[in-house]
Formats: sequence, structure tokens, C-alpha cells
Amino acid sequence: MNDVVVFSGSAHPALADRICGHLGVSRSPVDIKRFSNDCLQAQLLANCRQRDVYIVQPLVPPTQEHLMELLLMIDAARGASAAQITAVMPHYAYARSDKKDASRISLGGRLVADMISTAGAHRVLTMALHAPQVHGFFSTPVDHLTAIGVLADHYRGTDLTDCIVVSPDLGNAKVATQFARLLGLPVAAGAKQRISDDRVVIDSIVGDVAGRRAIVLDDEIATGGSMLELMDRLKDAGTTEASIVCTHGLFAGKAVERLRDHPFVTEVVTTDTVPPPPGWPELTVRSVSALFAEAISRIHHGRSVSSLFEGVDPTHAPPQARLPFDDTPS
Amino acid sequence: MNDVVVFSGSAHPALADRICGHLGVSRSPVDIKRFSNDCLQAQLLANCRQRDVYIVQPLVPPTQEHLMELLLMIDAARGASAAQITAVMPHYAYARSDKKDASRISLGGRLVADMISTAGAHRVLTMALHAPQVHGFFSTPVDHLTAIGVLADHYRGTDLTDCIVVSPDLGNAKVATQFARLLGLPVAAGAKQRISDDRVVIDSIVGDVAGRRAIVLDDEIATGGSMLELMDRLKDAGTTEASIVCTHGLFAGKAVERLRDHPFVTEVVTTDTVPPPPGWPELTVRSVSALFAEAISRIHHGRSVSSLFEGVDPTHAPPQARLPFDDTPS
Amino acid sequence: MNDVVVFSGSAHPALADRICGHLGVSRSPVDIKRFSNDCLQAQLLANCRQRDVYIVQPLVPPTQEHLMELLLMIDAARGASAAQITAVMPHYAYARSDKKDASRISLGGRLVADMISTAGAHRVLTMALHAPQVHGFFSTPVDHLTAIGVLADHYRGTDLTDCIVVSPDLGNAKVATQFARLLGLPVAAGAKQRISDDRVVIDSIVGDVAGRRAIVLDDEIATGGSMLELMDRLKDAGTTEASIVCTHGLFAGKAVERLRDHPFVTEVVTTDTVPPPPGWPELTVRSVSALFAEAISRIHHGRSVSSLFEGVDPTHAPPQARLPFDDTPS
Amino acid sequence: MNDVVVFSGSAHPALADRICGHLGVSRSPVDIKRFSNDCLQAQLLANCRQRDVYIVQPLVPPTQEHLMELLLMIDAARGASAAQITAVMPHYAYARSDKKDASRISLGGRLVADMISTAGAHRVLTMALHAPQVHGFFSTPVDHLTAIGVLADHYRGTDLTDCIVVSPDLGNAKVATQFARLLGLPVAAGAKQRISDDRVVIDSIVGDVAGRRAIVLDDEIATGGSMLELMDRLKDAGTTEASIVCTHGLFAGKAVERLRDHPFVTEVVTTDTVPPPPGWPELTVRSVSALFAEAISRIHHGRSVSSLFEGVDPTHAPPQARLPFDDTPS
Amino acid sequence: MNDVVVFSGSAHPALADRICGHLGVSRSPVDIKRFSNDCLQAQLLANCRQRDVYIVQPLVPPTQEHLMELLLMIDAARGASAAQITAVMPHYAYARSDKKDASRISLGGRLVADMISTAGAHRVLTMALHAPQVHGFFSTPVDHLTAIGVLADHYRGTDLTDCIVVSPDLGNAKVATQFARLLGLPVAAGAKQRISDDRVVIDSIVGDVAGRRAIVLDDEIATGGSMLELMDRLKDAGTTEASIVCTHGLFAGKAVERLRDHPFVTEVVTTDTVPPPPGWPELTVRSVSALFAEAISRIHHGRSVSSLFEGVDPTHAPPQARLPFDDTPS
Amino acid sequence: MNDVVVFSGSAHPALADRICGHLGVSRSPVDIKRFSNDCLQAQLLANCRQRDVYIVQPLVPPTQEHLMELLLMIDAARGASAAQITAVMPHYAYARSDKKDASRISLGGRLVADMISTAGAHRVLTMALHAPQVHGFFSTPVDHLTAIGVLADHYRGTDLTDCIVVSPDLGNAKVATQFARLLGLPVAAGAKQRISDDRVVIDSIVGDVAGRRAIVLDDEIATGGSMLELMDRLKDAGTTEASIVCTHGLFAGKAVERLRDHPFVTEVVTTDTVPPPPGWPELTVRSVSALFAEAISRIHHGRSVSSLFEGVDPTHAPPQARLPFDDTPS
Repeated sequence: MNDVVVFSGSAHPALADRICGHLGVSRSPVDIKRFSNDCLQAQLLANCRQRDVYIVQPLVPPTQEHLMELLLMIDAARGASAAQITAVMPHYAYARSDKKDASRISLGGRLVADMISTAGAHRVLTMALHAPQVHGFFSTPVDHLTAIGVLADHYRGTDLTDCIVVSPDLGNAKVATQFARLLGLPVAAGAKQRISDDRVVIDSIVGDVAGRRAIVLDDEIATGGSMLELMDRLKDAGTTEASIVCTHGLFAGKAVERLRDHPFVTEVVTTDTVPPPPGWPELTVRSVSALFAEAISRIHHGRSVSSLFEGVDPTHAPPQARLPFDDTPS
Repeated sequence: MNDVVVFSGSAHPALADRICGHLGVSRSPVDIKRFSNDCLQAQLLANCRQRDVYIVQPLVPPTQEHLMELLLMIDAARGASAAQITAVMPHYAYARSDKKDASRISLGGRLVADMISTAGAHRVLTMALHAPQVHGFFSTPVDHLTAIGVLADHYRGTDLTDCIVVSPDLGNAKVATQFARLLGLPVAAGAKQRISDDRVVIDSIVGDVAGRRAIVLDDEIATGGSMLELMDRLKDAGTTEASIVCTHGLFAGKAVERLRDHPFVTEVVTTDTVPPPPGWPELTVRSVSALFAEAISRIHHGRSVSSLFEGVDPTHAPPQARLPFDDTPS
Repeated sequence: MNDVVVFSGSAHPALADRICGHLGVSRSPVDIKRFSNDCLQAQLLANCRQRDVYIVQPLVPPTQEHLMELLLMIDAARGASAAQITAVMPHYAYARSDKKDASRISLGGRLVADMISTAGAHRVLTMALHAPQVHGFFSTPVDHLTAIGVLADHYRGTDLTDCIVVSPDLGNAKVATQFARLLGLPVAAGAKQRISDDRVVIDSIVGDVAGRRAIVLDDEIATGGSMLELMDRLKDAGTTEASIVCTHGLFAGKAVERLRDHPFVTEVVTTDTVPPPPGWPELTVRSVSALFAEAISRIHHGRSVSSLFEGVDPTHAPPQARLPFDDTPS
Repeated sequence: MNDVVVFSGSAHPALADRICGHLGVSRSPVDIKRFSNDCLQAQLLANCRQRDVYIVQPLVPPTQEHLMELLLMIDAARGASAAQITAVMPHYAYARSDKKDASRISLGGRLVADMISTAGAHRVLTMALHAPQVHGFFSTPVDHLTAIGVLADHYRGTDLTDCIVVSPDLGNAKVATQFARLLGLPVAAGAKQRISDDRVVIDSIVGDVAGRRAIVLDDEIATGGSMLELMDRLKDAGTTEASIVCTHGLFAGKAVERLRDHPFVTEVVTTDTVPPPPGWPELTVRSVSALFAEAISRIHHGRSVSSLFEGVDPTHAPPQARLPFDDTPS
Repeated sequence: MNDVVVFSGSAHPALADRICGHLGVSRSPVDIKRFSNDCLQAQLLANCRQRDVYIVQPLVPPTQEHLMELLLMIDAARGASAAQITAVMPHYAYARSDKKDASRISLGGRLVADMISTAGAHRVLTMALHAPQVHGFFSTPVDHLTAIGVLADHYRGTDLTDCIVVSPDLGNAKVATQFARLLGLPVAAGAKQRISDDRVVIDSIVGDVAGRRAIVLDDEIATGGSMLELMDRLKDAGTTEASIVCTHGLFAGKAVERLRDHPFVTEVVTTDTVPPPPGWPELTVRSVSALFAEAISRIHHGRSVSSLFEGVDPTHAPPQARLPFDDTPS
Repeated sequence: MNDVVVFSGSAHPALADRICGHLGVSRSPVDIKRFSNDCLQAQLLANCRQRDVYIVQPLVPPTQEHLMELLLMIDAARGASAAQITAVMPHYAYARSDKKDASRISLGGRLVADMISTAGAHRVLTMALHAPQVHGFFSTPVDHLTAIGVLADHYRGTDLTDCIVVSPDLGNAKVATQFARLLGLPVAAGAKQRISDDRVVIDSIVGDVAGRRAIVLDDEIATGGSMLELMDRLKDAGTTEASIVCTHGLFAGKAVERLRDHPFVTEVVTTDTVPPPPGWPELTVRSVSALFAEAISRIHHGRSVSSLFEGVDPTHAPPQARLPFDDTPS
């Protein structure tokens, strides 16, 4: 497997190292230089010519810095005649900017996808896009992984009596339903109404959660504000306790203090698509590095990524051909 | 308003005529020729040079024929040196193909968007895209209208006692909620599980519909299969009757016979984004032609489309700056 | 030859199977789904990653359906990270729309070529384009095969005494001349004047056909209307009988009944670039599948396609370096 | 008409001046500099910002120099923020390279069309493309004029008794037929077989020319070699004399001496799309400058170019909607 | 002048206000939102449809944030159907990354230029690019202003006896020479050798500076490290005092304390292309806002920008047709 | 090394042969045809399919002819399905047109770079670009070699006592400094002021050259006019003699007679990036063919080009990571 070269920007080198470990290669060094006028420059310190180059960089805060690093590394790899450049973005944060819900608003999810093509990436490897439609923002092929198998593994073998999977809002209910099926559990959802960026009110819970233990699944937790509101609504609705689980655990602002010691929250589970927040040793982090390594290996060897887990454990699988809540017209 | 030229393919000339009527212009003729090898050719029979050209064509069955007509008309307008070409697609049917929910599947929503750019359109004017993210599939500016104001008008002034707005599935719940707010009504949603393309089972209704009269809102009704299932579930849940309302009323296959005489359904309301089905005089059709004409007029005169109804009736308005179910991270 | 994957849309799977037979591979399955709103979706059911993908689809009626199938299959292959995608269009019907012979007319031959690039094809493999210039409409490399060697084989060994090759119109005379040279025969041409799409008058025959047996060569026969007129003119000019031969035998509309039992026509010969018409067992069909298979094999192995028949039978060869009627300025 | 700016390279400033005269504007100066390493540089010496810029440059020898001048002028106009740039190429010489009639051959007609787009032209205005399909090589809109009206004017009012229009080869027969119709004359054609670039043999004449006076129409005459052969064949066939007429009269190499004093040739008629050859005062040159000026005026004012002569003299008209030798399938 | 709309990101609204003041328009508001996952979103709060939109944003620290703001504002303007979008970057900081002086290094100057095109800008208006070649990195037209006229004004009317213009390094010597000519002064230059990013050694001074007062001109001052070294070298070479003048006065890191009280430095002069550093009231800032406003006005009205100062004071002029140190081959 | 195919246009086949000799391959033949209307056509006479194609063509006079040949060869290779096309331009003459030093001027360096991409080249291999920024004009990867190692070899082992490297103008001083370091010599520079294209005045020499022997290094010598002026200035400044050395020795116009017998000039040294001028046997020409062959070999085998000389002689090396006169801000 000599031809694979893996680079990492400064966003999450630990994840890149874990991926490299599974691949059996060493992470190749990059020199990111910041000039005194604050411009960045990337120098790749390994030969890229005719190599299959993977650049690992989730878009985590400081997001603009990490995005620019990624673009400069892609540009450097293209200029260095890489055969194929894959932008590995375990968390594509700009996927949140996926619709024009106001006049004259930017559509960051599409713009950043176009910028990644402009810089020279041939393919994107990502996980748990905020909406599945964001896939279509990219002009390049996208390999889109899911963490719900890895996350479900956490709950397997534990006592799931009286548990119910809860989606914080109606929009995410489809993935929550898929997750619930993996665990053989029912599902419920909150209906949230945003007031401002960090002040949120949950109107109601749809589904019967009284007397049940909630497993609340979200794709990303940032400040945790709406999660807190949801805890209150679940308590009001008679839920007894909550386990919180998400793919992208940013835990920005007051999220750690809000969630770490919350009496209603029994545990918080996340993955390592983003670096863990400081000061929270109790946080459960399940690694998706093996999943990324396997996908890279399959991309590199021209084997199917979609059949990643055939014959293994179907619960780790990415979305299969027919989804339960497919809304094609009828 | 001499410089606007409006053409229509064969998909829905009646709508184009209504739009032209509001604009005070005549629809310009097009000659669509079918050769003996089944290839199509479009000839625009009015001068396009430096004109602001609008081509009206919803993507209704036979969809591929109408799509190709649209692309050929755009190509002809570009070759004829039109200053600006707007593809007016009141129903963008390929928006349904908006995600990769299976391996090696085509992403028609993005592909057709790219084809419309390739043909030479500078802008798209459309209504009620299946998912708001589809906006981001287009490389050109998109003006995205909503029919919920026009549809809400139908219910204004009628007795809405005990009514509740119902979304057939969780994914559409946001628009249903917005619609419910316009009418001051509560909202509920079904959770559907697809079995095959025209055989659907509804699991459950989230929200309390017992003893209430349902106003069921969907973006598109094709065969009506899942709507029929929903009627059964609503009856089971104690709903007393249902009014069905949708933007794109295709009513394909057995939809007309299924819905026309259904004892539980008091009325079916739709718009003229697509031609009405034959044999259903009782169908209520509200025209969106004035809305499209006003948008075209504003595009042409460089006035804001988003402020389309400022100072008039806010209930007709397209989505405003801050939506109730905005799911930005928190 | 493990890395070649051949798919076929619904236009002509039998030809794809014949090509696969020559290549010694199995045709890989495709799932083409039609939604209830008449939109299409393609799913490729074999791994494409880093494969050399060939998609066989002549543009035959229903042409728009087959074109859209082709575009969706290309899009799916691109999204599935195919190394190289070749659109194999044995009949590129839109080549007929190759010039602007009227104002504000679409140029379908170029538009469809651009659409095929937009969808993601890297190369086109086709046969007998209506005009050689259509090659230049494609942004991708085109491998352009000819069937005249295969067709000439049909006449080899038969009695060609008093035979003359006749081109139905002046524009096709160059290929007819090349065909005549393969058989060592003289050439004549008709001058046709179109009245409408299926009503044609032939003015005259240029060249001496009196007392001769005509072999009439055309690239495509659709309704056969102008061919019928030509038979009358040839009879008037003293021709004794006619054998009709064409590459693309669509035989649409009344073509079968017009030509099958025509007393003046001794036989009709065509190839399998398009499916044979029903109800005409006497039609002679020569297969071009071996030619396509050999071209695919050479493309895949990086061998010259132009030297396809070096050292074999020169009469099968594609156009060589210097053509007899080269019209470079002088 | 203040906003039109007309520039000319060094290919044919006299034509540009004539066009400007008809438009009532002055030709704006350009400084073409040749550096000591033979590189060219163009500086436009009039403000282009938001102007409608026309750059007149036929591709005449030295063709590469004039092509590069044109590209550099387009680039300069784009960099200077011109609103719209039209490449006015009265003779698009690379149209001759319109097909791949040999393996691994360049397709100059398409390549140069792409280069003109790359440089920044928004539109092309040209005349008498060698083949009508070349129109489809351009990604930009093309306004394609014909000189046959202007050329027919030369013969109007003269004695046309016993005259016949002759096309030198079968490929050009369509335009000759159209020209013959304008003059109410019959048509014939030669079948030429090229041996090398300046040595040509004419096999035969199709059509009855015995005892007639020929009017031989070609699109371009370069060395005149094949025209000379045709004169011999016409003489053999009993033609009494010949008038030679062409749109693009390059008369390169020995063409002037070959044709000027040829005893069989009564006159040679051409247009000013290219500069006249030196040493041939008897050559009849009809100017197409008024036609180009009218086209520019109509482009600039957004009036139809195709209806250029409506209500005037139909014989000047560019190709109309339905051509006599339309070869759409039948 | 109703159709001009000027927006500003958060980089330098004061400059945008000054430009608007000269233009006689109000700056239109923008809402830049930062989500809790650190992604940015821009909403333009004034109608852009068919407007001539100018977005003012120098790339100053935090550079990546300001760059992303600019790209999002451009994207929003494009989506809002602006007629023409000009990115006004008074300081294009990434121009420093203009060459590959190491292996596998990013070329930020070109990459960011491409990103600005990808986002949708039609034109760039900038000042004092680090190297004139950077102009050629942009695919869009660039209007490139110079501040040396504004800066020379500062010295006009003062006592320039014994003054000499000094360029800190050989690469900038051309602009320094042009500046010296405006003031009628001789010129000298330093030869610097960089050790690391903020530790620099100056080898020598070329030119005779002994007994003279230096006016040191640079395009950008960031940390001031190399300027400090130059002061030492000038002192060694017998210079009596120094006035420091630059276009882009970033004064990052310790620059203010290094330069503000330096005994050898009599004054520091800069412009307002970037915001002034805090804590330095003695810094002389000359505004370039009138220059930008005049350029915008000329762009908007289609008047020549290059003739910006014809008939006024030639010393403000941007580079004229023939520069003194033109190095075309000889 | 079977898969490499090397073609040459007519600019410099001898260099291509030398490169092929080092590579151990034969140069593949090309047929460049000139039609009677002066248009060119290229036919590649070796199979390119899936080959790694290198086309050697420096842009030397007649520059436009050679440029067009190169573009046509690239186009032919693309159409022939080459896997990878590298334009090998040992002298990229249009690099001189690298800035807009006048209004409405073409930017040939960028335009030609774009044309090479449009034609279909995937990579550029070049040497000694006039300015390092020109690298950024190309959208494709560029491998940029330097000849200063080869040129320094000429002086190694000779007596360099009292020698000084002189750059003719300040702009080239960086490369001269690098060259001087290779030889352990000091450096000086001229300040030239151009009057017209072939009449130049040198103002002064910066640096102490009195009593020294000059080695004058330039990137390109065309007419030699400014070099002659420099000789006079050096003599005035007390230089005793001069050796002239350049990468691209065009020696156009009177350059040979000016420099060959100049009493002050002891020798002239150049490389074979361009063909040698006739009538100058004493000219010393050092071949760069081995350098190009090694670069091609490394590109083909996916080995690093930047580490071309690691472990060999560092003085041949292309620019390393950190250059002495790096002018990043400070």
C-alpha cells in the first residue's frame, strides 16, 4: 500500500494518526506557515506525484482557519501532480448552511463544496452530513459514511428495557428511526422553535415518552442549548432519564458545563470526528477511525465502499438501497 | 414592458397564458418539431435578441419529453442571443431525486439542474421544491416561490373550528407548521414507511387528531397511494373528516378515482403548477399564475422578489428571514 | 479483462449482450426505476469504483427516455467513482440536428453532446454520425466507427454485374463513393427536395443508372418516405431493381410496410446499431457487435482503434488518413 | 449609437473602415506591438468599459499571426471590462478543419472556436462557413451571414441565357442550388478527387452542362488548382465559357496568374471578406461591408438579424427556415 | 446613481463609509452571523437584483475570517441576482503568496483569486498588489489602483533637500523609482536576506545614501522587523534620518512599539487600505477612499478608470502606458 | 519505459532528439500540414491511447506558428485519448507579457497559459520563466526547471579571481544572487531605463564592479540592445571584461554581430532551450536536455522532480524551499 499518502491539517491530527494506524502507513508531515499578515501557506513534505492523496481535516473551530488550511493543502497537492486528491472531512460543518431560509442569504454548504472542487479535490469522504441532500452540493463524487453503527455498538449488550430513541427535531427523525431499528426500540421526536442562536424553546414532544428512558440522538451538538431545553421537555413529558448520543460532538461555549453534570443525563456518547472538548474525561468517545481507514483502503483498491460491511455486522452499514422513510411521491 | 418574451413548451401552455395575461403580454409562439427518428427540435418564433426571455415548462408527464423540450428551447434562446434566460419550472419534479439513499444511484435533482445550466439558462424560477436544499443543486440563481399563501386563502373565511393541519410525513412537517400558523391551527404528522413505489403503510400519527377535522397538506400528490393510507390512519385515530391540499396535483394513475369519491375526503384543493387531471370537475384549483407573473415582473424590473408581498397580505409571502423550525446547531 | 464493466439501458440490451459475448464478460445489471411522477432513476448494480465503465445505449425511440436513462447511468457511474466512463451510442440520433438552417432553432446535436459531458462521460464511442463534423460537437474524445466494411461484406461474393451504388442525396455521396470503391462499383446520387417531414420529392438522379441494378446506401432509414420517392425516380431513370442498405435501420411509422413488399426492392440490409423492427423476418441484419467489442477492447488496453483492422481486411476499416473527396481548399 | 466600439487587427482594416462607414462611427485605434522575441501584444486605444465591442479580423494569411492578434485583442477587451465582445470573422478559415478524416489528427475548427471563447468573446459574427455544422463548434452564439444575395446581385440584369450554376464538388452543391434558385438557373456539380494539396483531378461533371455558360460558385478559392481542373472538365463536357464566383477570394500562390488570363474564364467575382490580391485590377469585388454593418447594428439594438432583409430583397437573405436540400431523416 | 449598492464586511467598515461618502450613497447593511459551530453566514439587507454591487473588504487579520465573509457576501449577491459584483479588496494580502519558491507549496495568491471567481465576483478592484504579475492570477477583469500619488502628496511642499527614496529590497525598486520621479529625488535600495519569518539581516545598501535623509517606501509593513534592520543599515551607511511610507500599514505584532518611538524615524506615513493600529495617534494616514470612490463611479458609468486623473494631477495616476523599468526583452 | 511518447513540433526537433536520447526512446513523428489558406493541421503518427505524451516545443520565432503547432498537437493528443499530456516548453516566451503596465493591454502570459489548458494539456514542463509569478498563470500543474546549475558548471574549475556576477536589471537580481552564491562570487546590478523597444539607456550600476571581471547573467537575450548598453556602463564603471551568460539565447536581429566580436566580451554562454543562431560557431551552448529528460522520467515514474538532484551536485538544483531574497512581509 505504498502509494497512499495521508496528510492532516491542524484540525485533528490525532484522528489522522488513528486512521493511518489502521491503514498501516505513517502520516506524512505538512508545514503550515502563518505569515505576519495572517495569510496561511501549506507545504506538503512528502512526494505526491502520481500518489493517491488523502487530506484529513474536519471543519471544526476555528472553522475558517481549518477550511483555508484544507484548501491550501489541496492546492499544493494538485500543483504537486497528485494522481487523486480526496478531501477527508469527517465533519463538514458548512452542511448546516444548506438552504435559503431568508432573502439574499449565502448558501455556505454549496459555496464551500464548490471551493473544494476549485482547489482541486477529486473526491470527498465525509460522515453524517446534516441533511442527505448536501451530497448533491458537491460536483465531485462523495463517499458518505454513517456513524450510527458505531454508536449503536455502544448500547448493544446494555439493558435497553423501557428505552426510546428521541430525535430533537422533526428534521432529523429519519436517522433516529434508523438508529432505533438497529436497537429494536421505538422512536419519538421534539418540535423545536428557535428564538435566537443560543436561546431555544421546545414546544412539544411527539410520541409517547412517559415512563421511558430516552436515548437522544443528534448529528451535531454545539452549545447544547436546545439539548438542554429538550431535557426539560422530556422531564415534563415523564421521561425518567436521558442518554445523549451524537456523531459530531463539538461541545462549544458552555456545552461541557451544561451537559457534564446535568442530573437528568446519565451519559453522553460521541465519536472522534472532531477533537474532544477539554475538561470532560467522562465523555464516551467511540472512534470512527477504523471506518475511515476501511473506506480509504477500499477507495484506493477500487473495492466497493457501499458494501463496506457485507457479511459482517449490518448495523454498522451506511444507508442501504431502500430507507424506511423514503418520501418519493405516491 | 416590451422586452419580456414568454415562451411555453407543450407541458402547460394554459398556465403560461394565465401568466402572460397578468403581465399584459402575449405568449410568443414556439414550434416544437418531432422528427421521424423521435428527436425533438425547438424553434422560437419571436425575436429573443437582448430580450429577457422566460420559458414556462413544469416537469410533468411525459417528463423526459417536457424536460428535453425545455432544454432545447433554452438552447435556442441562447443561440439567439437572449440577454437573460429564465427557466420557469412551476413544478421541478426531479427535486424528488435529491439524495443518494442507495449505492451507485443517480442524483437526478442535481444532474437536471446542471443540464439546465449547460443548456444556457441564467436563472430558475420555481415553486415548492420537494426539499429546500434542492435550491443548492443549481449553479444559477433560483427564485423559489411558495404556494402556501394562495392555498391558505382557500380556507380563510371558512369555518375552521376543530381543524388541525396534518403533514403526511415527518419530512414535510416544517411547511405544514408554517401553513398551520397562517391559519392559526395546530399541527400533526404521519410517520410513513414505504414498502414499494405505490404500496405504503403508515405506522402512526404524531399529534392529537381525535375528534378533529384534518387539513392534510402535501407538496405533491402523484398516485395518491400514501394519502389513502393516511386517510385510514386518521380515521383510526378519530379524525372526523379530511380536506386534502397540495401544491403540485399530478393525480397520476388511479389517483383521481381513489380520491374523488372517497367518503372521508370532503374536498381536494391544489394549484395550477401542473395541468389538472381529466375527469375531475369537483377538484378545486387555485391559480398561482399571478404569483409567477409578479415574480417575473419584479425580476424584469430589478425589484426584490423576496419582498413580493410587503404591505399586502403577509400570508402569501415566501419564506421569511427566520423560520420557526430552523435547525441550525445549538 | 476484469476491470471492464458494461451496462446497458433499456434501448438495446440485445446488442449489449452481443458485445459482451465478444468481450467475454457478463453484462452488469442496472435498475431503471420510474417514479409515479414519471421521473427516472438509475442504479448500477455492479461496483464501478476505478473500473473502466461502458454504457451501451443507442438513441432510438422513445429517444428522450433513452437519452435520460443514458445520462442518469453516466451520472451514477461518475458518483460511484468510475475511473473512466464511455458512452457507447451505436446510433447518435441527435446528430441530425447539426446545423442552424432556420432562425432561433435549437442545435440538438451540440446540446446533447454537451449534456453527455455534463453528466460525466469521458469518451464517446459511436458509429456512422450523420455528418463527420458532428465529431467536433463533443468536448470529449470520440471514437467514430464505420459500418461500411460490415455492409460491404454482405455483397462480397454475390453477383455484382451491372450494379451501381446510389446515394439518396448529394450530402451523403462521399460515404457512398467510399462504399462503391470497396465493391469496385460506380456511384450515382439523387437530388432530393423536401416538402415536409414525411413528404418528399426527388428532382433528379445525377449519374447514369439506366439498365443498372442499384445498391442504395443511406446512413439512417426512418419512415422510408424519401427512399420510396427515390425508387420511383430510379425506375423512371431505367434502373432495373434496387437493394437497399443502411447503417441505422429504424424503420419507423409505415417504413416496414412500405419497403418489405415493394416490388422494385430485392432486399433490405441493415445493422444492429438499433433494434430490428417487428414483423419483418426477411430483413437482413449484419451485426456490428464484434466491431464495438474490438474497439472497447482496444480502448481498454490502450491499443490504437484506428488501426483496428491492420493486416486483416481493409474493407472493414474506419476512414483512413486521406479520403477521396477531401475538400480542403485548393 | 455611441456605445459601439469597432477595432480591427492588421488583417483587413479596409473592410473594418467600410463597416464603420456604414455604421457612422470611426474605427478605434489598436496598437499591435511585436517584441524582439516575436511575441505579440495588443493595446486597445479607446475606452471599452461597458461598451459593445466589435473586433474585425478575417483569418487570412499570415493566419496564425492574425489569429493571435484577434485573441489578444479579445483578451484586452475583456480585461478592460467590455460589456459584450463580438469576434467579427468575415472569413473563418479554420472552418476547413472540421472533421477527423485521419487518425490522431487535430480538429482546428473546434479548437480555434474554443480558443476564441477562452479569450473572452461573447459572440461570433461570420460569413459562409465552409460547412454549416461548424456553427455547432462554437460555445457562444454565432450570427452566420451569407454572401449569396450580394453575389447574385452581380448577375441580376445581365444576360443569363443558357447559363448554369456549377458547384465544384458535391459537398458544396446545396449552396450552389440555393444560388441557382435566386437566379432561376439550373445546377450541376463536379466530383473532385484530390491527389495532394495542390494537385487535383476532377473525375466527372454531374448534370448537363453541354452548350451552356457556367457560373461556378465556390465558398473559398485559395491556390485555384482544383478550379483550373474544373475548367478543363467543363470544356471537355461542352461548356462554352465560365464565370467564377466565390465568397472568400484568397487567391494565394499562383491563383492570380492561373485565373486572371485564363481564356475560358470570362470574369472572376468575389467579395471583400478578405483583402484583394495584388496585381489583379480586373477582379470584381462586391462589398459585404453593408451586410456586416447592418448585422452589427441589429445586434447592438437587439433587433433580429435573421429578418435582416424582410420587406427588402429576399435574395440577399441568410438561410431561411426551410432549405431545399434539408436532409432530415425520412 | 441609484443602482450602486455598497456593502462592507467586518474588515474595514470605516473605509467603506468614506467611499460611500464620496459616492453620495449610504452603505447598505449586512448581517454576518456566526453559528455556534463557528461557521459564518452572510445576509445582504438591501435589494441586489440587477444592481451594480460593490463589496468592500481588505484581507486584513483575522484574514481567513474576512476572506470567508467576502466569499459569502459575493455568493449571497450572486444568488440575489446582482447584475454585476465587484470585490473591492483595497489590500489583497494573499498576493504575497505569488510563487512556488519551494516544493509542494500552495500558491495562495492564485487559489484565492480562483475562489473569488467561484463565489461569483465579476470584477476585482484592488490597490498596490505585491507584484504586478498577480493581476494575471485573476480570471475576472481587475482594476488595479496605486497609492503613490496620494502618498507623494504628503511630501509635496515640504523641504526635500538631501532626501533620497529608499526601497527596502531590490524587488520593490521599480515602484520606489516611480515614486522618486514624482518627487524629483534619487533612489537607493537595500538587499535583504531573510533568516526566519521575523528575524532578518540586511546585507547592504545599493546606492549612495550617506549624508542624506531617507524616505523609505514599502508596499506593506507587517511586523516591521526588516524595516528595523534597514534603519540600522541606513544609519551605518551614513543616512541622517528616515521617513517611512507604505500603502498597506498593517503594523502587526510589535510593529507599533518598534517604529513609533524609533529615534531614527521622523515619521511614518500610510493609507487607510487597512484599519489603523490602536495606540498610535501620531501615525499619518492619507485616505485612498476618494480614489476608490472615483474608480467605482467610473466603473459604474462605463468611463475609463485608467484615465482617472487626466487633466488633473498626473502624480496621482495609476501606472501609465510605458513604465521606466519595463523589462521587455532587448 | 514503453508508455512514454515524445513528439516535437518544428520549433526545435534537435532538442527533442537529445531529450529522447537521454530517455532511451525514439522521437515519434508528427505530420504538420499547412493548407493553401495558411491554416495548420497536426497529425500524430504514433499511438497515444493511454500513453504519457510529451510534446516538446519552445516558443521561438516564428512564435505564433510554433504556438499554434503546439496547440494543434495537444488537441490531437487529447482527441486520441492520451492518458496524460505534458506541454514541454523549454522557453515560454509569452512569460514576458506578465503584467498590465498600460491601459487596455493584453496579458499574453495568462492568455496563452489558458489556451494551453483549453487545448487539453494536463501539465506544463518549462524552464526559467521570466518572472516566478508566471507559474501562477497556469491552471495546470507546472514543473519549473532552472538552468543556473548547468550554467554554473561552465564556470566551475575556471579562474574566477576578481569576478562579480552582474544582473542587467534590478528585477532579475534574485536569480543572479542565487547564481553568484553557487560560484561564491559577489553580485551587482544595472538599473536600466527603456526608451523604446530596441533603444535603451542604462542609468547606473549598483554595486562595486571597478577592477572586476563581470559575469553578466540574464534569462533571455533577444536583440542584445540593452546588453550592449550595459557593456558601456560596466566599462565606465571600471569593469575590465565581461562574460555573458543566459538561459534563453534567442540572439534575434543584430544580436549576433553586436555580441560576437565585441572587444569587451570574452565569451557568450547559453543553453539549448532554443535553437542556436546561425553564423556563430564560437557561441558556447550547454545542453539542458539531460535535465528535461530526467524531469520527464521522474514525472512518468511518479518520483519527485523537486528532489531531482538530491545527493548529486546541489548546484544544479531548482529553487529550494527557502530562497535568499524571499520578500514575505515582516
